[in-house]
Amino acid sequence: MNSTQPADKLILHGLIITMDDQLTVLDDGAVAIAGAGIVAVGPTSEVSAQFVGPATEVIDATGQLVMPGLINTHTHAADSLFRGLVDDLALEPWLERLWVAERKFLRPETVRLGAQLAQAEMIRGGTTAALDMFWYPEVSAQVAKAIGFRLMTGPVYFDFAEPDNIPVEQRTARGREFLQEYQRDPLIVPCVTPHSTYTVSPQYLQEAQALADEFGVLLSTHTSETNAEVATVSQRYGQSPPRHLDGMGMLTERTVLAHCVHLPDDEISLLAQRQTVVAHCPLSNLKLGSGVAPIPGMRQNGVRTTLGTDGPVSGNDLDMWLTMRLAAVLHKGVQQNPTLMPALEVVKMATCDAASALGLGDKIGSLAPGKQADLILINLEQPHLTPLYDVYSHLVYAVGRADVATVLIRGRVVMQERELTTLDEASVIAAVEELGQTIKKQQIGN
Amino acid sequence: MNSTQPADKLILHGLIITMDDQLTVLDDGAVAIAGAGIVAVGPTSEVSAQFVGPATEVIDATGQLVMPGLINTHTHAADSLFRGLVDDLALEPWLERLWVAERKFLRPETVRLGAQLAQAEMIRGGTTAALDMFWYPEVSAQVAKAIGFRLMTGPVYFDFAEPDNIPVEQRTARGREFLQEYQRDPLIVPCVTPHSTYTVSPQYLQEAQALADEFGVLLSTHTSETNAEVATVSQRYGQSPPRHLDGMGMLTERTVLAHCVHLPDDEISLLAQRQTVVAHCPLSNLKLGSGVAPIPGMRQNGVRTTLGTDGPVSGNDLDMWLTMRLAAVLHKGVQQNPTLMPALEVVKMATCDAASALGLGDKIGSLAPGKQADLILINLEQPHLTPLYDVYSHLVYAVGRADVATVLIRGRVVMQERELTTLDEASVIAAVEELGQTIKKQQIGN
Repeated sequence: MNSTQPADKLILHGLIITMDDQLTVLDDGAVAIAGAGIVAVGPTSEVSAQFVGPATEVIDATGQLVMPGLINTHTHAADSLFRGLVDDLALEPWLERLWVAERKFLRPETVRLGAQLAQAEMIRGGTTAALDMFWYPEVSAQVAKAIGFRLMTGPVYFDFAEPDNIPVEQRTARGREFLQEYQRDPLIVPCVTPHSTYTVSPQYLQEAQALADEFGVLLSTHTSETNAEVATVSQRYGQSPPRHLDGMGMLTERTVLAHCVHLPDDEISLLAQRQTVVAHCPLSNLKLGSGVAPIPGMRQNGVRTTLGTDGPVSGNDLDMWLTMRLAAVLHKGVQQNPTLMPALEVVKMATCDAASALGLGDKIGSLAPGKQADLILINLEQPHLTPLYDVYSHLVYAVGRADVATVLIRGRVVMQERELTTLDEASVIAAVEELGQTIKKQQIGN
Repeated sequence: MNSTQPADKLILHGLIITMDDQLTVLDDGAVAIAGAGIVAVGPTSEVSAQFVGPATEVIDATGQLVMPGLINTHTHAADSLFRGLVDDLALEPWLERLWVAERKFLRPETVRLGAQLAQAEMIRGGTTAALDMFWYPEVSAQVAKAIGFRLMTGPVYFDFAEPDNIPVEQRTARGREFLQEYQRDPLIVPCVTPHSTYTVSPQYLQEAQALADEFGVLLSTHTSETNAEVATVSQRYGQSPPRHLDGMGMLTERTVLAHCVHLPDDEISLLAQRQTVVAHCPLSNLKLGSGVAPIPGMRQNGVRTTLGTDGPVSGNDLDMWLTMRLAAVLHKGVQQNPTLMPALEVVKMATCDAASALGLGDKIGSLAPGKQADLILINLEQPHLTPLYDVYSHLVYAVGRADVATVLIRGRVVMQERELTTLDEASVIAAVEELGQTIKKQQIGN
């Protein structure tokens, strides 16, 4: 069509996995990008002819797979500062020790470093968007804006004295400022993140929900992660965490519950009925000894499920490929049924289904005209990815974080052939390593 | 000492994780290598001065971790040709379909390609030795000799018509030739690998054991991988696979049993008593829906346990870091006890403990004078490996295959800064991709 504007960027000759409604796959495919958005996806021969212009930047994806960036729906990114500091403990004593470190060392300057480190790691691993629950969300949001990472974050609620020194009764006012600032941001997706039913009293959980409703944004919280949590909340409020939340009107289609490891059948039905989202974090649940979430049962009963890495103290990294692999194999093994969680379903959980679940289905999660250009290129020409019989099998059972070569978010190249383009990675690594030395010394003396 | 010969190679300024009996760790350490062996491990300042000569090749390991290469104690390497061809099926129908493909496509030329591809993948991931059960072991051994990979392999036993067209009654004679050829080889560790108690009749299992005894080599076989296998063998022989093997004198300290997923307490005691080795393959057991092996219980009861990836149709790759991560987190999660399988124990299972279990404790598995120079260098200066608080935690919970920069086997550099030095990798990848196209077409028409 002669009315077509040339694209700013053309990705050509890739194996394109669109994750669109028809699950279109193109063997020699192209993606045309104008500004932040995708304007065309199709055979290279067609798209190239139609969208190339004198100023078009061409990215040759020969030998590469092109797909939507992965969406991490639960993490605490800047905890990267403490990765490996506390291992091999149960959630409760582990949290106690982590919180001591957080209170001692978290300030805006250190959170900035942790967020830079974590967002660099996520981009390197092909994650283009993350739902992040962490102190000083404005700092992580500033980092994301600078790097070009799509961050979902917002006010944290917690009843006790915390690193940011905001009393719980002031959190709504402060949170409202954050939501106002970012409500129309093209990159930051503001949300509200009260920690859990065992650390936030009903009054402030309800305030958090009212704030989320006021702005029409997501609310995310930890739920039924361990047996101990379920017992504590049941004793305190006479009902389980999901029932307690439901009693306050907090199970909605804009609620993302992280973990849900200990969920009886009737609560699975409740979550399905409420269209509430569950962020499955298999690596964290295993490493902390929390258990194995009944994800296949949730999916069979219509619960919307997505994937998360949890924070880098729980894993100890932010690897969505490992999360996908675990989500695919763990339930097969534990239930002794290898037909559970087929590869395609797991890829959906990390892309198109995650986008829909987060209310971002019109923006990200698949490659199609009108969507934002959040996409990743994967190097296929490697021994462990040879031969290629089935793309979805490959993505779940063979691809790893280091196979991601190039990453675009909102049409901006944030990693090109393994080089980050928007962050001085070496200086961040050096600064965190130095901070880590201090943390290590002071923690050991603790 | 003035009598010291200069080293051929000096690795300097590394963070050295020796995995020796004292678990020596050196912050600014060096390894001196002469020929195939390690002649010194110590502080850079001492070792460098003592072993440097005019012809010494110096490898600067600044910012890198140096440790023994990983030992994969159960795989079917050349099944790399079929990676991703058959997924999401239970072991028995999966095996049926795999065997159809193997019978149709395996010949010495294709096994050569598959072995090259798999050994390239293993080297890239820091695996320096593997116990491989596969058809045409002489072909895989030739490949390993050429590439410089330490391969443990040898005659396969199987009662039925197989790709190599060797009738089972001729396998011992043919196997003896293999064992004779390789019994003093510096790189190939010959062993005997009958497939299992459900695919090999007692007569030939006993022949296999006699052959292993004749040469004093290891025997490895699949055991109690699935409930169906245990039921079949119990029905056929009136006892479980381990008891059936024990009745034929096949549980010795030179026996490596792969999987052992379904093992009651009395059989755990039996294996401990016999000092038999169990190769734990958690990824395969999960993906095929086989179950979760009672590894913590085995270890508490004194069973010698090691790690394996299983073949690349089961995983679908040959990643020992993923295997370590799974071995560390899976049992914590399933038993809801995060103190199980601490990181250090898991690193031992992949290095020094594996070497001892395979009877190679005097040669590999740790970095010490007199040992073979099988070692790997890992790039630490990356976001997901920053900061560094505990090296063993890092190795198990954060390091991945692509972090391995350089690999030496018997003192020979087989990968240097991610470039394989002994194999034309691109041509192998291209040839396997082409073969894969043929396999895909013919299998789909099947």
